[in-house]
Amino acid sequence: MKLLSEPRLETIEMPENLAVAMMVMQARQQHAAQGGGALDFVHYAFGGSPFPVPAAVQQALGEASGQGEYRPAEGIAPLREQIGRFWDKHFGMKIDPGRMVVVPGSKQGIYNTLALLQGPVILPAPSWVGYLPIARLLDKKVIVVPTRAEDGYRITAEGLDAQCRELEDAPQSFLILNSPNNPTGAVYTRSELEALAAVCRTHNIIVISDEIYSLITYDAAGFTSMAQIYPEGTFITTGISKYAGAGGYRLGVTILPETCTEQQLLNFRKVGAATYTNAASPVQFAAIAAFGTDPAMDAYIDAQRNLHRMMTTELARRFGELPGVTTTTPQGSFYFFANFDARGDELRAKGIADSRTMATSLLQEPCRVAMVSGASLLMPPESLTFRIAAVDYDGAAVMKAYQQARPQGPQAEHAFVAQHAAGLLSGVDRLRSFLDTL
Amino acid sequence: MKLLSEPRLETIEMPENLAVAMMVMQARQQHAAQGGGALDFVHYAFGGSPFPVPAAVQQALGEASGQGEYRPAEGIAPLREQIGRFWDKHFGMKIDPGRMVVVPGSKQGIYNTLALLQGPVILPAPSWVGYLPIARLLDKKVIVVPTRAEDGYRITAEGLDAQCRELEDAPQSFLILNSPNNPTGAVYTRSELEALAAVCRTHNIIVISDEIYSLITYDAAGFTSMAQIYPEGTFITTGISKYAGAGGYRLGVTILPETCTEQQLLNFRKVGAATYTNAASPVQFAAIAAFGTDPAMDAYIDAQRNLHRMMTTELARRFGELPGVTTTTPQGSFYFFANFDARGDELRAKGIADSRTMATSLLQEPCRVAMVSGASLLMPPESLTFRIAAVDYDGAAVMKAYQQARPQGPQAEHAFVAQHAAGLLSGVDRLRSFLDTL
Repeated sequence: MKLLSEPRLETIEMPENLAVAMMVMQARQQHAAQGGGALDFVHYAFGGSPFPVPAAVQQALGEASGQGEYRPAEGIAPLREQIGRFWDKHFGMKIDPGRMVVVPGSKQGIYNTLALLQGPVILPAPSWVGYLPIARLLDKKVIVVPTRAEDGYRITAEGLDAQCRELEDAPQSFLILNSPNNPTGAVYTRSELEALAAVCRTHNIIVISDEIYSLITYDAAGFTSMAQIYPEGTFITTGISKYAGAGGYRLGVTILPETCTEQQLLNFRKVGAATYTNAASPVQFAAIAAFGTDPAMDAYIDAQRNLHRMMTTELARRFGELPGVTTTTPQGSFYFFANFDARGDELRAKGIADSRTMATSLLQEPCRVAMVSGASLLMPPESLTFRIAAVDYDGAAVMKAYQQARPQGPQAEHAFVAQHAAGLLSGVDRLRSFLDTL
Repeated sequence: MKLLSEPRLETIEMPENLAVAMMVMQARQQHAAQGGGALDFVHYAFGGSPFPVPAAVQQALGEASGQGEYRPAEGIAPLREQIGRFWDKHFGMKIDPGRMVVVPGSKQGIYNTLALLQGPVILPAPSWVGYLPIARLLDKKVIVVPTRAEDGYRITAEGLDAQCRELEDAPQSFLILNSPNNPTGAVYTRSELEALAAVCRTHNIIVISDEIYSLITYDAAGFTSMAQIYPEGTFITTGISKYAGAGGYRLGVTILPETCTEQQLLNFRKVGAATYTNAASPVQFAAIAAFGTDPAMDAYIDAQRNLHRMMTTELARRFGELPGVTTTTPQGSFYFFANFDARGDELRAKGIADSRTMATSLLQEPCRVAMVSGASLLMPPESLTFRIAAVDYDGAAVMKAYQQARPQGPQAEHAFVAQHAAGLLSGVDRLRSFLDTL
């Protein structure tokens, strides 16, 4: 019996970062089983927090292990109320818990939002690898907006406006805006957001503001939510995966704008009720602690923010010293975007004409460096750009060292990174060797 | 700003059972806050296990609280391997873990399967309330196959074959088959499945075999999986919600047929990777214990099976003694289907002309009995049929009493139910009073 596939699934690629991450994990396991010693990968392709789940969250999960019952599709009330307090404390925003829906991960919140409302999806290039599959699964038209290196690969009001002719006669569309940004580390300023909001108002563009890295803005006070600038048209999607080291917990929240009708709020919940039912009940109780406003949770959030700043900034600085390589300057998240175009002629002479080929090539011995190609982030294939993630170190050990003796000042921070994340930095030397062979 | 909805979401109803369950829960909380004493609901509308999550599963969840990492979309290998041992032990089936995908709940597995392959969806009437919203969300055509009371509301080969003209020229379609059945408690025999499989082979019908109640088959040896009869065309969807009292954990598994290509296996995982990523990582580790093949888990499964048999059988017997009421004879699950059609003339004289009106009417004082209407289970609106769930009792106390002194023989079992589930049975008296007023 031959089973006939839904054609649209064939148009979805398995995200390259997941495929590479699995490959690296398997290679490391094999390496360990063989007794170690030989060359290992330097893993710049993975996008998860290296830090352990906060102790209070772990304890809360254990205490909630008896929570076997189904829960409402919008999430339990005490969690949504706690999220309200957390938003007030960290972002100075008052959010009615009635506008929050707890979801099994921020990505699921993006899916539910795109399922809820009409319209094609505008994605800046580069964008996170996960948006395109969601749009494809929902059979939504996708419009890619190019950005410029001189703008730090940020989408600008002019760039957005110029692309709006592609919308044709769509009465409404979506823009997915991610700040702090994966893959560039950019944090959009208030005035940039205001300019984008003006274009969105003109063209009836709904913004899905992916704020999953908001608590990894290096200058904590420097984060502005699009929902503060453009409240009538912004959905916030976020979760505990990044700032609380709990990607595997699958716990996110979507904040719907006040312009959503009661029927639309209900429809959003219906998507959940028809598929995953509710975010796992014990995890919902544990998440109350992850959205804690207590000093211990504050200290954890500060520590992970500072460590990501130190690691990502130092790694980007060293990448920028590679001959012919330029990078964005990360202001948040644990990524930056690296551009090897100035070495393009030499690379093409070696048969490396696009970012995917180069990413595959760098995985081989002797380099063994894993990076996500720009091509899988919606960049033109021939753009020799890559996402670099600065999380390949022992997060538990590093956090412990930080808590015991927090480095003070730039020199101490450089020394801290060099001492505790030598493996992370070693990829730069491997890349230098690779470039030297060109 | 007016946000424009996706029209298809408007066609999805919020399941009546969830709406009623929320209403009853709120009324009970209010009742408790007011000091209790007055009339409470008898809740026949809820479809969850009343039993606590097994101690070993709770302990395993606590021990896995540090599992913050993302996991592969198909689920962790040790869990899938353990599911293989569990299937061998309980169902005598050898399943390659490579054909299993761990999902956040059995319902999500049904969604992924319908998203994976082409074709309209055939649903017997009555069917569980949750299938229709999944098909609507995926914009799939739905074909309802009526069943007959004299067949115990089972779909028959003749009934299925007769409806196949509705398939028009669809090269492939789905049948969702649920055994043990929600709402009727029917367990399909091997020969019934063989007859259905013959029709499926003729018309290229893929079966989604919803086996969520398989371990609540009262005669444990009496369960046959459609995958044993029709392996080339059957997807099994199930999970730990019902037999392990862990609906809130959101952990299910889909077993794909060997006829699925590698590409289709990958596509199935892509649906997960594009939305929920993976079933919550700590829950996956806890589920290894829920699929345990140890004596303690065996004893738990036996206890819940026997208790559901005792409770559901006794409640159905008492319903059958109500004047003019007939019921199915439950052989599995914790449901039966009750038919009040013989009282139709009297009910219509009181303005009760359909099952939804009657369900709403019964919720009012003085009756206060919650039942799910046949109309929300795809029955014709005027059919005065209802799903009755026999789970409204203190599951923890009942299981403890059972473990301390297991009742032996029918008389002892009747006495056990009367002693430990008086509230559950009290709804029958309320319904008798209601019927007496007609």
